[in-house]
Amino acid sequence: MAVGTNTLPKLLPVAGVRLAVVSAGVRYKNRDDVVLITADSGSSCAGVFTQNAFCAAPVVVAKKHMQQMAARALLINSGNANAGTGEAGMQAAEQTCEAMAKALAIPKEAVLPFSTGVIGENLPSDKIIAVMPDLVQQLTADLWEKAAYAIMTTDTIPKGVSTQISIQGKTVTLTGIAKGSGMIRPDMATMLAYIATDIEMEEPLLQQCLEKAVNSSFNRITVDGDTSTNDACMLIASGQSAVKLSDNDGDLEIFTEALNALCQQLATLIIRDGEGATKFITIEVQQGNSTEECLQVAYTIAHSPLVKTAFFASDPNWGRILAAVGRAGLDNLSIDNISIYLGDVCIVEQGQRAQSYTEEQGQAVMNEEEITIKVLLGRGNNSETVWTSDLSYDYVKINAEYRS
Amino acid sequence: MAVGTNTLPKLLPVAGVRLAVVSAGVRYKNRDDVVLITADSGSSCAGVFTQNAFCAAPVVVAKKHMQQMAARALLINSGNANAGTGEAGMQAAEQTCEAMAKALAIPKEAVLPFSTGVIGENLPSDKIIAVMPDLVQQLTADLWEKAAYAIMTTDTIPKGVSTQISIQGKTVTLTGIAKGSGMIRPDMATMLAYIATDIEMEEPLLQQCLEKAVNSSFNRITVDGDTSTNDACMLIASGQSAVKLSDNDGDLEIFTEALNALCQQLATLIIRDGEGATKFITIEVQQGNSTEECLQVAYTIAHSPLVKTAFFASDPNWGRILAAVGRAGLDNLSIDNISIYLGDVCIVEQGQRAQSYTEEQGQAVMNEEEITIKVLLGRGNNSETVWTSDLSYDYVKINAEYRS
Repeated sequence: MAVGTNTLPKLLPVAGVRLAVVSAGVRYKNRDDVVLITADSGSSCAGVFTQNAFCAAPVVVAKKHMQQMAARALLINSGNANAGTGEAGMQAAEQTCEAMAKALAIPKEAVLPFSTGVIGENLPSDKIIAVMPDLVQQLTADLWEKAAYAIMTTDTIPKGVSTQISIQGKTVTLTGIAKGSGMIRPDMATMLAYIATDIEMEEPLLQQCLEKAVNSSFNRITVDGDTSTNDACMLIASGQSAVKLSDNDGDLEIFTEALNALCQQLATLIIRDGEGATKFITIEVQQGNSTEECLQVAYTIAHSPLVKTAFFASDPNWGRILAAVGRAGLDNLSIDNISIYLGDVCIVEQGQRAQSYTEEQGQAVMNEEEITIKVLLGRGNNSETVWTSDLSYDYVKINAEYRS
Repeated sequence: MAVGTNTLPKLLPVAGVRLAVVSAGVRYKNRDDVVLITADSGSSCAGVFTQNAFCAAPVVVAKKHMQQMAARALLINSGNANAGTGEAGMQAAEQTCEAMAKALAIPKEAVLPFSTGVIGENLPSDKIIAVMPDLVQQLTADLWEKAAYAIMTTDTIPKGVSTQISIQGKTVTLTGIAKGSGMIRPDMATMLAYIATDIEMEEPLLQQCLEKAVNSSFNRITVDGDTSTNDACMLIASGQSAVKLSDNDGDLEIFTEALNALCQQLATLIIRDGEGATKFITIEVQQGNSTEECLQVAYTIAHSPLVKTAFFASDPNWGRILAAVGRAGLDNLSIDNISIYLGDVCIVEQGQRAQSYTEEQGQAVMNEEEITIKVLLGRGNNSETVWTSDLSYDYVKINAEYRS
């Protein structure tokens, strides 16, 4: 059960981008598990990948291929992460790219592989190669919803967003899908996101836009602090809207704002579907000396098992939030300048329980499904926002019982 | 239920150190909750305190008093942490010191206050002051066991260790007690430890010895990464064994080894009694470039909810340990050099599942209550050890249901 989410909205096709979705039986039975996304010739493609030193074979291959030429095809499987699989895993990833390239009549380096699922098992590349003729035959623009389902592993809801903006009198479309539920769902190498737009943009600028968007969205969410070996976020720009944006373009901001918003929507959908989540928590840290210290405080709160269990219990336990701020490691932190709000209710002022605060006020906020913690550090002008979920019995259940 | 612990051993009196234990009804009914520990004139006293920026009133007062003169009396209450209580909390801490000093006919600054229990409630200093005549009257050397019980909050077992060593043909005694169960048990500002010895030692050297011992014991344990606002570890040296040790003394090492071992025993008792703990986990990181990077890897594993839930499930889920090592943030970490052992079983070699490894071998180790993870980084000569517990339903239950 995800927190406060609706059903998947209608996902708009993006001109120049086609999809195919099939069932290959990689691990799951009776469901789609392989997705092919192709970009017409002339497209640009940007990507951001996991920072985990143990990145999976497909991540290594995708990064290598991207350095050689513009990507034309993204080949994604769920059910198996092809991670911790050593040299055999590298070969399997390369083989699938090679076969897919042949079927599409493009160079091998134009194909990028992505895998999500169980870590440490060999990828059954033969099963994926066997369905390639079906994939090629099926390619069509209107399959984003089916793709959103096919990339799920232990997600409880499919995740997708579409938006349209007007630039230079023309309509530009952005559509994205994502999967992920914990940073690593039990052995599930986790977060994947695929976004396409019909804007025209050179690859270096596209990469810049994507990195900035990821930084304020996918890089601002945490379920349990665990970073997957397979995380990737890809952005294709097909150029078929007849709107071209370059570095100095005044209209660039219209596009980046839409991209940022779309990434934030996808990222927060992952948190709403966080493992065992019963609360969707927004942590705003303001008045910091730097971005870094705002994030330090926000993540210390977001990762505190004591804060997370208090949210699960709907317990306005301000002492735990205060203690988390205090142990975040900020130099010369002056307690007397700190205020903390739960929703609109001031719970801590000047470093102690607010005079006006009553337990009933705190309880009313904590009873909500969606809660904002605001910490005012009183020592600067920087702000940062991080999203997280609570720590419930179901988190333990999901992660403890998965393999048994 | 603590993991693999026995009953409290016999705790030896330390000449020159006396205790008193009474029931003041600070919060609990029908149990002891106030402890007085006095050191005869001529004693030295060292202390290490929480790094949390929000340190509780008694910590502020204790640190201030220690700077002014050698401590002669430690006044400890359980049930109320006197944390997050602002100016009123400071006054309450000072008042109890003043009253205790008067009753003992020593200066106020020779009394150090310690509080552990619920955060954010005013300390009922009148209740503590009311029992002071009883405390003074009762003072005796043989009350360490009763004191170990009286300082407990939500600990499930009392924690104490005694040891004797021979230096210069004479017997030196060390006795210590501790309390703590999570870094913060639900609102329980947590870890306190009191150690006494009859060795004679100047305060600067005693402080050095204590800091070194704490650094390889209390600073190497974690239940949930949360640091309390009240943590303190005190060491009294009464000097009554007629053995004096100074900086260049060849016998100093006999003493520091015994002190280090005693601190490790107390620290690991806290982990064995960790919130909801069903496993006692030792994490050894070897072959690191520095102490810091060994600790970085050890704590990333120790704090990973995915690793902790896998241990709760007795699941030999090597992918989660591998992923934790990978995200620990080490520069230029080469996967190919890494080996990981579960007990004596090699689960990862050269960055991938060991050829010889079978699930049965891993399962056999995971079925134990006490488990060692060993990570060989293959890039240096430094080692560090950290102790932790697993993440169970009971952890969530204890922390979510405590206040309801």
